[in-house]
Amino acid sequence: MVLTSFDEAAVRQREIARDELDSLELGPGKTHWLEVRGVHDPQLIAAVGERFGLHPLVLEDILDTGHRPKIEEHDEMLFLLLKRVNFTADTHELSLEQISLVLVGNVLISFKETEEDLFAPLRQRIEHSAGRVRKQGADYLMYCLVDMLVDGYFLTLEAMGEVLDGVEESIESDPRTETIRAIHRLRRQAIGVRRSVWPLREILSALHRREHPLLGEDTQPYLRDLYDHVVQVVDSSETQRDVLAGLMDLYLSSVSNRMNAVMKVLTIIATIFIPLTFIAGIYGMNFKYMPELDLPWGYPVVLGIMGVVTLGMIFFFRRKGWI
Amino acid sequence: MVLTSFDEAAVRQREIARDELDSLELGPGKTHWLEVRGVHDPQLIAAVGERFGLHPLVLEDILDTGHRPKIEEHDEMLFLLLKRVNFTADTHELSLEQISLVLVGNVLISFKETEEDLFAPLRQRIEHSAGRVRKQGADYLMYCLVDMLVDGYFLTLEAMGEVLDGVEESIESDPRTETIRAIHRLRRQAIGVRRSVWPLREILSALHRREHPLLGEDTQPYLRDLYDHVVQVVDSSETQRDVLAGLMDLYLSSVSNRMNAVMKVLTIIATIFIPLTFIAGIYGMNFKYMPELDLPWGYPVVLGIMGVVTLGMIFFFRRKGWI
Amino acid sequence: MVLTSFDEAAVRQREIARDELDSLELGPGKTHWLEVRGVHDPQLIAAVGERFGLHPLVLEDILDTGHRPKIEEHDEMLFLLLKRVNFTADTHELSLEQISLVLVGNVLISFKETEEDLFAPLRQRIEHSAGRVRKQGADYLMYCLVDMLVDGYFLTLEAMGEVLDGVEESIESDPRTETIRAIHRLRRQAIGVRRSVWPLREILSALHRREHPLLGEDTQPYLRDLYDHVVQVVDSSETQRDVLAGLMDLYLSSVSNRMNAVMKVLTIIATIFIPLTFIAGIYGMNFKYMPELDLPWGYPVVLGIMGVVTLGMIFFFRRKGWI
Amino acid sequence: MVLTSFDEAAVRQREIARDELDSLELGPGKTHWLEVRGVHDPQLIAAVGERFGLHPLVLEDILDTGHRPKIEEHDEMLFLLLKRVNFTADTHELSLEQISLVLVGNVLISFKETEEDLFAPLRQRIEHSAGRVRKQGADYLMYCLVDMLVDGYFLTLEAMGEVLDGVEESIESDPRTETIRAIHRLRRQAIGVRRSVWPLREILSALHRREHPLLGEDTQPYLRDLYDHVVQVVDSSETQRDVLAGLMDLYLSSVSNRMNAVMKVLTIIATIFIPLTFIAGIYGMNFKYMPELDLPWGYPVVLGIMGVVTLGMIFFFRRKGWI
Amino acid sequence: MVLTSFDEAAVRQREIARDELDSLELGPGKTHWLEVRGVHDPQLIAAVGERFGLHPLVLEDILDTGHRPKIEEHDEMLFLLLKRVNFTADTHELSLEQISLVLVGNVLISFKETEEDLFAPLRQRIEHSAGRVRKQGADYLMYCLVDMLVDGYFLTLEAMGEVLDGVEESIESDPRTETIRAIHRLRRQAIGVRRSVWPLREILSALHRREHPLLGEDTQPYLRDLYDHVVQVVDSSETQRDVLAGLMDLYLSSVSNRMNAVMKVLTIIATIFIPLTFIAGIYGMNFKYMPELDLPWGYPVVLGIMGVVTLGMIFFFRRKGWI
Repeated sequence: MVLTSFDEAAVRQREIARDELDSLELGPGKTHWLEVRGVHDPQLIAAVGERFGLHPLVLEDILDTGHRPKIEEHDEMLFLLLKRVNFTADTHELSLEQISLVLVGNVLISFKETEEDLFAPLRQRIEHSAGRVRKQGADYLMYCLVDMLVDGYFLTLEAMGEVLDGVEESIESDPRTETIRAIHRLRRQAIGVRRSVWPLREILSALHRREHPLLGEDTQPYLRDLYDHVVQVVDSSETQRDVLAGLMDLYLSSVSNRMNAVMKVLTIIATIFIPLTFIAGIYGMNFKYMPELDLPWGYPVVLGIMGVVTLGMIFFFRRKGWI
Repeated sequence: MVLTSFDEAAVRQREIARDELDSLELGPGKTHWLEVRGVHDPQLIAAVGERFGLHPLVLEDILDTGHRPKIEEHDEMLFLLLKRVNFTADTHELSLEQISLVLVGNVLISFKETEEDLFAPLRQRIEHSAGRVRKQGADYLMYCLVDMLVDGYFLTLEAMGEVLDGVEESIESDPRTETIRAIHRLRRQAIGVRRSVWPLREILSALHRREHPLLGEDTQPYLRDLYDHVVQVVDSSETQRDVLAGLMDLYLSSVSNRMNAVMKVLTIIATIFIPLTFIAGIYGMNFKYMPELDLPWGYPVVLGIMGVVTLGMIFFFRRKGWI
Repeated sequence: MVLTSFDEAAVRQREIARDELDSLELGPGKTHWLEVRGVHDPQLIAAVGERFGLHPLVLEDILDTGHRPKIEEHDEMLFLLLKRVNFTADTHELSLEQISLVLVGNVLISFKETEEDLFAPLRQRIEHSAGRVRKQGADYLMYCLVDMLVDGYFLTLEAMGEVLDGVEESIESDPRTETIRAIHRLRRQAIGVRRSVWPLREILSALHRREHPLLGEDTQPYLRDLYDHVVQVVDSSETQRDVLAGLMDLYLSSVSNRMNAVMKVLTIIATIFIPLTFIAGIYGMNFKYMPELDLPWGYPVVLGIMGVVTLGMIFFFRRKGWI
Repeated sequence: MVLTSFDEAAVRQREIARDELDSLELGPGKTHWLEVRGVHDPQLIAAVGERFGLHPLVLEDILDTGHRPKIEEHDEMLFLLLKRVNFTADTHELSLEQISLVLVGNVLISFKETEEDLFAPLRQRIEHSAGRVRKQGADYLMYCLVDMLVDGYFLTLEAMGEVLDGVEESIESDPRTETIRAIHRLRRQAIGVRRSVWPLREILSALHRREHPLLGEDTQPYLRDLYDHVVQVVDSSETQRDVLAGLMDLYLSSVSNRMNAVMKVLTIIATIFIPLTFIAGIYGMNFKYMPELDLPWGYPVVLGIMGVVTLGMIFFFRRKGWI
Repeated sequence: MVLTSFDEAAVRQREIARDELDSLELGPGKTHWLEVRGVHDPQLIAAVGERFGLHPLVLEDILDTGHRPKIEEHDEMLFLLLKRVNFTADTHELSLEQISLVLVGNVLISFKETEEDLFAPLRQRIEHSAGRVRKQGADYLMYCLVDMLVDGYFLTLEAMGEVLDGVEESIESDPRTETIRAIHRLRRQAIGVRRSVWPLREILSALHRREHPLLGEDTQPYLRDLYDHVVQVVDSSETQRDVLAGLMDLYLSSVSNRMNAVMKVLTIIATIFIPLTFIAGIYGMNFKYMPELDLPWGYPVVLGIMGVVTLGMIFFFRRKGWI
């Protein structure tokens, strides 16, 4: 656990052990940010919960990392359960991580599913600059954290959009089984993103509409702006779904067009040569009495007939528009 | 019927016969749980209904096991009709069983469609521990029962998800008729789960929102948490539907890709050999006057022509990207 | 027209002619049920309308049998326009018939599109038993009639469900053109049922929610129960639609699988024999100088080559997973 | 322009020129209906607008014939912009025409896009009968006009339904490219009808719900009835869409079934004869040392082998269920 | 930046540099329109923001050109963020450009993403005519600008509709891979238009419904009219989507019909000639003892048999309806 305490004048940051929790002094003049990384240790979470008077059900939600994003508002506490999305461009893999935020008075507690130091940039911003984050309270800090997560959605959708464009190009040039698998994977990922961003939208709608004693008036415009951003994420995500559905159709018709082309070649070759082979077969028969065989101009005439048949076929295909 | 009576101090559990019903003493200081297993005996249900003053329509609903989940609120009574889902991993079969709960004062009556002792774990928890269940009243007991059912939904969706993943893999490796049947069966099962979980959501929404004299304030946060869980079940179930729709597309395109591959081989073989066979057919004709036949280099030249034609074809297919 | 007048003590039932209408005495102590079968005679309907003071637009609705189910509430009158569905199992045909109910005071008038004596069972129940129907007023009678219609929906959906199961089985065993026609017919029928059951749901929702002077308090729970039933009908009907959509997909993929199997056989046969035939064609040519022809082991060697080619092909198909 | 002025006692009908507009006396005791046919002359529309004090934006809407149906309510004026649909059975063409209605006091002004005398039947009804139309005011007259348009929707949907049934039959008997084009055209037309009937529904919902000083209490039940009719039109139109979607599927599967049948014949023929031809090819080779050729029973044995192969193939196809 | 200041009497228009901003006098009697073209220079935007007291979040939205259309209402300020769509008929390309409008008192500030002088026609109208635009205030000017953008949507949809009609025709005459690509592109573009027009609808709904101190009563009917237009744009755009979905189906069935036709020709040719070739192959065998070969009428009889087989095949195909 890392505790960052700051006001406009000073910042103090230190590592906290579990047994220090009870003796922590979190003075009212400052904003305190308690960062808990990793939720594998239920006893640690329980200790934090006890220190700040959190309901057992809230602690359960924090520990259960398969939860749907949600908001819980109590008079003296605000609990946000969010998802961080991350798209790895190399492997085309989407990962979701649960982030829980608890706002109690001037203290913000953040719980991360993994040990990764995701919020380092924000901590550095607090430390090095004396900007708005330092001036405003824990509610603005909470806004900053949620903002980082929403930015993650934008980046994810953008990265997925690029993969999607790549797939679209590859459909036109060379539709293969891998393409359909890529589309399918993108679809599943898009479902995942959508399922986590829709509740996020409700959460931010609730945040910027209802008045909560812990959310200052100065922070309201920022929350509203954040809400706009999330609406846009939802929008992009819906657009992506529509485009994906279109890609599927494009792929299927691309494949069926290819098949059509293959069929045409087969048909043309077979249709031209099967009758010719038949004619050759006729004069390959060993009947004793086949008068044509003894005629000196029999061979060239048959060759001529074959030529005529071929030209007739080609003319027929031209008229059908197959060649 | 099994009657479990308990308060914080003691637990008493006993088998009840139908004729004991009227003489039952259900003192106000305790919580009483009357468990009725099997609803095949209408007279038994009628006797229970008479003892606790249930409306005939409620009894009808309990007996009719094809009912949709619903809630009925009266001033002195709360009636829940729920479905238990169960997915058997081996046979991939989904079963639905109707569970009815009636809360009257400090008495909770549960009706199960089958004789199976589903609630044994809860009964043991009541007996052996002196936890929250023992301290709180019949409303919390009702919560515990509904919670068990909701957990069943989670398990079912998880098990179906595993089957689904298996199907997805088998599509990529080897799409067959069984695959499509499996998808179809999963789809029907997913419809079944969805149809029973949507009303469950409404029921829990009603429970945690409206204030009912029988639902204590302490139980409210638990009901709200339960509602969150059901929302998540609904969510997973919707995701599953989307994924299933995607699987169908994946399957169809996988099949059509295979067909394409088969067509290609056929086309290539036929397109190469049909013209060659025709050439061979020409020189198999028995015309007396075929000057080529008498030439000493006729045979090798024809073989050469055949080779050229073959190479031309192969070159053509390469250019088309078919080989 | 048949008039059934009853109270708890007695029942009287008689045939009424049009000119008796005006002189009818419909005393307040009893419940009167005027049953009009067949709406082909506008003058009869007009006479009934005049006797009971019905608005001309209501009469128009009764006569126009293509109407959508609806409810009209006036202070002193309640008008229900409903559909009876009937599914004939033998011919797989669905029929819809319009039933109009008018409740004025203690009189219920029912109008049936056809002459069929649909309500005979109810009339017998009134006559022979002294049950609830006899004790309660015209509003409960109306409930009984609507209940009969709703039960008809259940039976219809069940019968359609059986047909659907039959179709599903026949898809797996033997998909044919008749199958797709059966699916299409079921679909149209399902649309028909849905289109008539959705407004029914609104009607019953209106009935059990709003308080109307003509609907007694005792009848309310029954109307609510009826509403639950209709919701369930709607639900089943939606499920059926989803299952039908799934069947369509199952059918299409079943057909495409069959086609695939056919293609495979064709490809394998053609791919094996076309090259062999070509080899045979080579040595069927009549060139004078073909050294192989004169070799004593030429024939067995060529046969051997053919065998090798065949084995190669079979190996290739095995590797592709086609055999 | 035609002006029809009437009260219960008398009807007067006359042609009006543009310059007569200003001097028109439209006495309060009568109902006046000013019919403007054709909206090609903006100056005429402007003159009418000036005479009756219409807002420039209303006039713009009347002139712009591509507008969506809408209603505008002002205290002293009611403006309806509607669409008349017309389906020509011979050419299967759907036409939409804009009709604008303005109700100002006791004056109703109707604007038609074309010169066609659509409202002649209504004008004759006013002239010849002394029915309700003559007794009630301009609001009832407006109802009559809208009623005519709604009836047009019914007729259109019926006519389209007949075309649709014809298409459905032709799919089963003989699916061709024209069929798919007919379905596509019906679809576009159904979209057109739906797009104009949905706003109409909103308009009538607004009309019969809100109380407007210009709409008398006597006209209300008629507007409500009209609303019911429009709801039914919407319903039929939705049903038609569902049926059309089903037809598309039916067509596609019908086509794919045909293709399947074609493939089967090809496969059977090819699979039987290709091996036979190969056998014949073998014994057509000209090797010097082919011992079978010299055997007296060689020929019949080979014919026998061919027969056995053929029977084997036929047995194989039977088992596969292809013959 | 161009500043246009005008009242009913006079118009003054001039180029403004960044450092003139602070000293600008924007007297209350006139309407001032500050046009900012290009948003590439954040410092310029910041300067404008400072001069007119805009919130930093508003400036951020103006600079971020990927934003979703939205409206922000403050007591003394109105902020609209809109999209201009433009469809280039030649290249079939759709471009979206962000336009932001800020209304503060009697000043309207417009920000354009690019340098293009889009609003020149409006500026000329202000300069040369003394119409309504000159008489009414900055709110009416804002209406004029939004009106121009909405007209752009109409033009875009019309142009896309023409492309769509072209595609539809080309499907019927000659379905090719380019067609499907064109449909796909139109689809993506239609998604783009829809995604920007739906929020526009909400914006105008908000504008004409809520009363805002900056929007005069005279401007209200124009905003309502604009709202109607946007609803119509939404409507057309939805229709286009439905038509596009139908086109896709039309295309696919067109392609599959073509394939069917190709298959038929192949089947007929192969089915006729494969058996004939086999017969010829039989009599091409070199068995010593083939009695038919020595018969004088062997050859014509075999030719006759071939003719009979051919006629039988043709009869079979006729009966199947393939020829």
